[in-house]
Amino acid sequence: MQNTYCVIMAGGIGSRFWPKSRTSLPKQFIDIMGTGQTLIQMTYSRFLKLCPKENILVVTHSSYKHLVKEQLPELSDNQILCEPARRNTAPCIAYANYKIAELNPNATVIVAPSDHLILKEEEFVKAMDVAINQVRCESCLTTISIKPTRPDTGYGYIQFDTEEATSHALLKRVKTFTEKPNLMLAKQSKAKKVIKKKGYWNSGMFIWSLKSIMQAMEIHLPEVDNLFKEGVGKYNTPEEDAFIQECYQVCPNESIDYGVMEKAKNVYTVLSDFGWSDLGTWGSLYTNLQQDDQKNAVLSKNVRLYDCTTNMVSSSDKKLVVIQGLNDYIVVDTDDVLLICKKEDEQQIKQLVNDLKINKVDKYI
Amino acid sequence: MQNTYCVIMAGGIGSRFWPKSRTSLPKQFIDIMGTGQTLIQMTYSRFLKLCPKENILVVTHSSYKHLVKEQLPELSDNQILCEPARRNTAPCIAYANYKIAELNPNATVIVAPSDHLILKEEEFVKAMDVAINQVRCESCLTTISIKPTRPDTGYGYIQFDTEEATSHALLKRVKTFTEKPNLMLAKQSKAKKVIKKKGYWNSGMFIWSLKSIMQAMEIHLPEVDNLFKEGVGKYNTPEEDAFIQECYQVCPNESIDYGVMEKAKNVYTVLSDFGWSDLGTWGSLYTNLQQDDQKNAVLSKNVRLYDCTTNMVSSSDKKLVVIQGLNDYIVVDTDDVLLICKKEDEQQIKQLVNDLKINKVDKYI
Repeated sequence: MQNTYCVIMAGGIGSRFWPKSRTSLPKQFIDIMGTGQTLIQMTYSRFLKLCPKENILVVTHSSYKHLVKEQLPELSDNQILCEPARRNTAPCIAYANYKIAELNPNATVIVAPSDHLILKEEEFVKAMDVAINQVRCESCLTTISIKPTRPDTGYGYIQFDTEEATSHALLKRVKTFTEKPNLMLAKQSKAKKVIKKKGYWNSGMFIWSLKSIMQAMEIHLPEVDNLFKEGVGKYNTPEEDAFIQECYQVCPNESIDYGVMEKAKNVYTVLSDFGWSDLGTWGSLYTNLQQDDQKNAVLSKNVRLYDCTTNMVSSSDKKLVVIQGLNDYIVVDTDDVLLICKKEDEQQIKQLVNDLKINKVDKYI
Repeated sequence: MQNTYCVIMAGGIGSRFWPKSRTSLPKQFIDIMGTGQTLIQMTYSRFLKLCPKENILVVTHSSYKHLVKEQLPELSDNQILCEPARRNTAPCIAYANYKIAELNPNATVIVAPSDHLILKEEEFVKAMDVAINQVRCESCLTTISIKPTRPDTGYGYIQFDTEEATSHALLKRVKTFTEKPNLMLAKQSKAKKVIKKKGYWNSGMFIWSLKSIMQAMEIHLPEVDNLFKEGVGKYNTPEEDAFIQECYQVCPNESIDYGVMEKAKNVYTVLSDFGWSDLGTWGSLYTNLQQDDQKNAVLSKNVRLYDCTTNMVSSSDKKLVVIQGLNDYIVVDTDDVLLICKKEDEQQIKQLVNDLKINKVDKYI
């Protein structure tokens, strides 16, 4: 456990969760389930079961540093890695790797997003243990994949070898990663096919030894790796900040999935089923919330529904919301924005936000 | 013109216009069309074409006196008649009658609600002139009736004699008043039948000589008339207020339509078509507003509609409203209430407000 490190990625904007999620207060910093804890607080608590709190690193955008400090006051400044620009997951992981390397070269590293929902924590810890055990025995990269509960075009899929024996029944060698199906064109047909082929959802959670991932990045993403390698000696010192500022200016935008996982040879996945949702959209939140008799999920105390079914309603408790005769909509009311969107059109929300950007009404984003 | 008096009735709550209209700020005091003038201000301006401003009286509930003074600062205190309780239209008219009687017993009186919309003011003035001319020649009661533009269960209907010759082509003797069809039961069938019988909408605007209406109330509504008669000598004096306080405590609740108009013999109506709406509901406002290509009527500057048709949207300009894939709804967003209601269910709004009363969440009413 002393060798286990957790890297929580918390730099996203969560624009599909607009208008609750804002550039200045993204999803991971919101108590979106109404449980009293924000998503990043829930994620942090979950990882305390796997490693000491000193071994938890949060990588975030500089502008969110104050939110991380506020919501996770136990973290020291050295545990909060600030990215000056958004460069997707590969640079984020490279940065954490080099930092951990100078602290503990024998580290086992878990990388996970800050804004996922996990309902069955015990099952989650078990899956993590399977992965940790594997990466300590063999030089490999491991991902957590999730048993699909429905066809969904919002996720990438992982296909795995069902024949080859491994150290654990739920551990499988990965055959291929399938990117998210093209949303508007493919609709749900491709996702359906992949499910038939026993594909699992790519959760975006990774487990590896520090050595294996650093090796893999050296091989598959030298253009990223070389940049961060230049900082050796500066990590965990007062020079780190200035180095990272410069490094990110020239660093390419690259995902770890595309840049490493899809190219690496020795990749395993732990088949999991622990009540997971990436809470990527209002619809995925809807399916994870308690619903009333008419299948409405309501996230505030002051909502009165008449002849309404299967809606997702979120508003402030101070505001009275009265809805008559509405079915299958997402209704989100914040202080300065009201969104009403057909549930089946929720993938449009990202577009709506883009539209605002184009029209330069940034204050609502 | 010196003998013409206008009585503007401004005591209503406008609960079908909730949540924009509130008990503390009813419809007549709101710039509901977004023109820069509230409805009562528009009504007042309109009557300045028919009588001197000193002859305009506003009857309202005591709690709205400050609103009347604020919005119509030209009125003297003696022109604002404050009712301590809501007793429908008959007591309101009786009060105004006795007050005017001591100022000018030869008055011709126009009585009209404060919250109607009239698009063609010239036509309106012409119709009023026909009525004024009639009531000055003959002892009778006159109403303004409106050519229906659609079957509507929200209005009472007036049927008139098409044969009898009168002093003006548009002046007709009234045969019967038909109450509003029972909304939920009769749906639109009764309204359709009445339209076939050439019924016109009852606008709730009346013109009569003071003598005729006082006589008619003496005959048909003695229980109301006797109460107000006791105040003779006190009207327009410092004793008026105290008298009215007592009088309203025992005064029955009675409408002028049911109490007098339906019983009186000599009743005429002026058939009119001057772009009228009582703005009784959001739907009637909708039909009177400018609409976009997709027939949405939007009452604020900061609304973005995608794949939306035939909606009525009202919100504050400060708030961004984004709607995707919604058709035929009323969306009203105020600081503390959000209402979303199917347009065809708008008669339910009154019920929704009642529900709030029953549940004692009065602060939103």
